[in-house]
Amino acid sequence: MTEMAPADVFGGDWHFEIEREGFAQGVRVLERIFRVTTPFQTLEIFDTKTFGRALVLDDALQTTERDEFTYHEMIVHVSMMTHPTPRRVLIIGGGDGGTLRRVLEYASAEPVQVEIDRAVIDACKRYIPSISAGSFDNPRAQVVIGDGVEHMHANAGGFDVVIVDSTDPVGPAVQLFATPFYQSVARSLADDGIVVAQSSSPLIMAEAMRQQVTNMREVFPIVHTYLGLVPAYPGGLWSYTIGSKRYEPLGVSPETIAERLARDRIQTRYYTPEVHRGAFPLPPFVADILA
Amino acid sequence: MTEMAPADVFGGDWHFEIEREGFAQGVRVLERIFRVTTPFQTLEIFDTKTFGRALVLDDALQTTERDEFTYHEMIVHVSMMTHPTPRRVLIIGGGDGGTLRRVLEYASAEPVQVEIDRAVIDACKRYIPSISAGSFDNPRAQVVIGDGVEHMHANAGGFDVVIVDSTDPVGPAVQLFATPFYQSVARSLADDGIVVAQSSSPLIMAEAMRQQVTNMREVFPIVHTYLGLVPAYPGGLWSYTIGSKRYEPLGVSPETIAERLARDRIQTRYYTPEVHRGAFPLPPFVADILA
Repeated sequence: MTEMAPADVFGGDWHFEIEREGFAQGVRVLERIFRVTTPFQTLEIFDTKTFGRALVLDDALQTTERDEFTYHEMIVHVSMMTHPTPRRVLIIGGGDGGTLRRVLEYASAEPVQVEIDRAVIDACKRYIPSISAGSFDNPRAQVVIGDGVEHMHANAGGFDVVIVDSTDPVGPAVQLFATPFYQSVARSLADDGIVVAQSSSPLIMAEAMRQQVTNMREVFPIVHTYLGLVPAYPGGLWSYTIGSKRYEPLGVSPETIAERLARDRIQTRYYTPEVHRGAFPLPPFVADILA
Repeated sequence: MTEMAPADVFGGDWHFEIEREGFAQGVRVLERIFRVTTPFQTLEIFDTKTFGRALVLDDALQTTERDEFTYHEMIVHVSMMTHPTPRRVLIIGGGDGGTLRRVLEYASAEPVQVEIDRAVIDACKRYIPSISAGSFDNPRAQVVIGDGVEHMHANAGGFDVVIVDSTDPVGPAVQLFATPFYQSVARSLADDGIVVAQSSSPLIMAEAMRQQVTNMREVFPIVHTYLGLVPAYPGGLWSYTIGSKRYEPLGVSPETIAERLARDRIQTRYYTPEVHRGAFPLPPFVADILA
């Protein structure tokens, strides 16, 4: 993935990502607001014309104000609804706060978030506050700056749901996609626990996706990949994979999901009981990657 | 939508489309194979690195060898399966032949295709033959070069399914999105007939989509929009809308769809009975466009 800023060719400043030298996606940058090199990565905040403020890590666009709901609703609600009574929720990564915010929408949830790079939380709180919407200051949320794996070792069996909201499998996040990591996750989960992880683009990172799902299958008896849209990501399609010790993601009825959304007054713009169900049937060209 | 070829900035030749000056998608062009200005549009054939051969009309990428199946399977199979016994099928547009090919997979189908621009069929047969796969020479197919509306006027009540496989609502296709067109379609359909039309991107052309669906609702008692992925289109997401006189698209059971696919030995890479069902639940942010 290469980032460029072809200032004159397209008119103004752009952020481009080029996939395998053949497929490019760009967003018009109105202002480059912030840039810092942290011990873990290069962090930038852009204001873009189409998507509002955007978080960019190591030249890869992570999330934007306008489309963050598509990703965060799908990584949080599908797993939270798969578990009948999610209380102890561990979020690994997710420094923009969009995942934490959706977990906190469940009245019974007591989330712990472990983010390795404090600068991500600080920059997002300051420059894109609409994503976390105050969640980092919610008294029900515990935020730890540190290593997610260490935190899991110290809390064996402690979690109902683990949400791995990481960057792609390059750079600081690469360990979060390997089998030993999922073994640590499994030990940190209760006997009926669930993990969900973002699992790359079937269009652009098919081999990474296949390897990750293979790793999860080595550890969890129930593994299902589902799809969602993330407009600001190249190709627009994103996958998420659930590893579960007991519950089937399609074991919860649409009626139960609707009741739980209503009970906690959870408002959504992407996720619905029917979208939950409709996210799991994989087109054969995607299923074939995982066969 | 603007097309550019920033030869040096990205390395080599690229085809870019820029949406509303804020969002760009590009494909690396290995060779510009063919270009002609027809009475209706500018037609180009590119060989691209990521998607193979591509058809480009008036600077807008229409279809590619590698991802054409996503669009063509979703525009054809959902409507064909909604009708219990589709025999007389009218295809309007679709000069690349990918729609005709999928309609011919139904043993009972007797398709008529009306394409206004002969050059599209000729160029696609010659330069991207894998899309039509010989369908234009199938004795069951009748191909007419001409105006789809005129053909419908001459065949009132004659069709079970009408498939509007057009370019976007600019240029030669603009009339194909207006209410008078759908009134013509309705007259051309049998009492239990169905029309399906590509209905733009909810991400990039939300207002065009809304207007088109509004027009269809003025004419058909049953109107449903569904979503699919088209990786080579900006944003990756595409919508299709069915207008139906009698049959509900979700009225056909997954078991019946599976039986009909098996009976005609139809192979798919995107469409399945479960994908059919999963394509209709619209995320609220899309449903709100049509509310």
